[in-house]
Amino acid sequence: MRLILLQFMEHFSKSKINSMERIFRLNLINSCTGYKSANLIGTSSNEGILNLAIFSSITHLGSDPSLLSFIVRPTIVPRDTYRNIISNHYFTVNHIHVDDIEDAHHTSARYPHKISEFDITKFETEYLNNFPAPYVKSSKIKLGCKFLNKYEIKENNTLLIVAEINDIYFEKDIISNDGYLQLDKAETVTVNGLDGYALPTLINRFKYAKPKK
Amino acid sequence: MRLILLQFMEHFSKSKINSMERIFRLNLINSCTGYKSANLIGTSSNEGILNLAIFSSITHLGSDPSLLSFIVRPTIVPRDTYRNIISNHYFTVNHIHVDDIEDAHHTSARYPHKISEFDITKFETEYLNNFPAPYVKSSKIKLGCKFLNKYEIKENNTLLIVAEINDIYFEKDIISNDGYLQLDKAETVTVNGLDGYALPTLINRFKYAKPKK
Repeated sequence: MRLILLQFMEHFSKSKINSMERIFRLNLINSCTGYKSANLIGTSSNEGILNLAIFSSITHLGSDPSLLSFIVRPTIVPRDTYRNIISNHYFTVNHIHVDDIEDAHHTSARYPHKISEFDITKFETEYLNNFPAPYVKSSKIKLGCKFLNKYEIKENNTLLIVAEINDIYFEKDIISNDGYLQLDKAETVTVNGLDGYALPTLINRFKYAKPKK
Repeated sequence: MRLILLQFMEHFSKSKINSMERIFRLNLINSCTGYKSANLIGTSSNEGILNLAIFSSITHLGSDPSLLSFIVRPTIVPRDTYRNIISNHYFTVNHIHVDDIEDAHHTSARYPHKISEFDITKFETEYLNNFPAPYVKSSKIKLGCKFLNKYEIKENNTLLIVAEINDIYFEKDIISNDGYLQLDKAETVTVNGLDGYALPTLINRFKYAKPKK
């Protein structure tokens, strides 16, 4: 059994990871924790300059209250998304449809602060119920969120942003009777690594798990 | 345009979300942030009782140093995973293969502390390079991790666990020349909501995005 393992399994130890070429490590570490969410965050500066940026770290934090979290790196490069959220507290989270992955990826290019990604990409703004941040018109599931808190992660100088989900918009055929949004009906993509976009198909849902008798 | 929107888009406001029936809200809020990672965390108590539990909140935190994070709720129910990690600091993260989703989901059942999920499910332990926590033998991508820190998220009494990735094991045909683990080659699943398991197919990878000339 040991021989079979050595033949098919590759092993990178901590020392090997630390001595890797930077891009190789970036690709490896970004892909080794599994699939990530794919969302566009829409914000506005206090001067009305819009921003749209792709994030793969948005994660469910809790349902009561309805919270999500994500990671920003404010100390490394200026981040319009972070600056806008800290300035006025509101932002939108917009699922990425499989037909939009090329433009969604392009929002990660470093444009000057005064240039809006809404002008550079095919994405169009949508304003709903006087919410102060722009939604993405073509997105089939979108959330209106309010900043609540930030936590400094000292291990790598990042910030965990905690926000409340205030509004949820979705196309009607996506939801099940029990509140479940079946994401493959929305053709929402998921992110594999830094730059890979994958389209999932639902295999099965299971009941609440109880111990076997 | 406004009429078309009202016809096809559903809207849940904050007050509607707050007044929802509990299970409906659980399903909705757990699915509205997009796809989540699907991993089994393997731990051992100081007395040698093993634990295996599914987590959908494991997220890439940074590549240099190589870090991941996830959420635990220690104040609501006793959590063996959390207790074991705090006791001895080591744990494994194991990708879930599409053939294993039923048993993986079953690890969320509340068994007494002294019962190991390795004895209840089809998953078998694997010990590699004297690492003190058990890996899942059938898993095609697995990480050996060390606890670094925890952050109390006061908005909902959860904890963000920050850990270092010390070892990475994977089957050789999964990795590309640039370090990328192509997860659909491993048939790793992703989680949609609380209880849905989906299998992604890679659509495309894009180059590092640069501003258009």
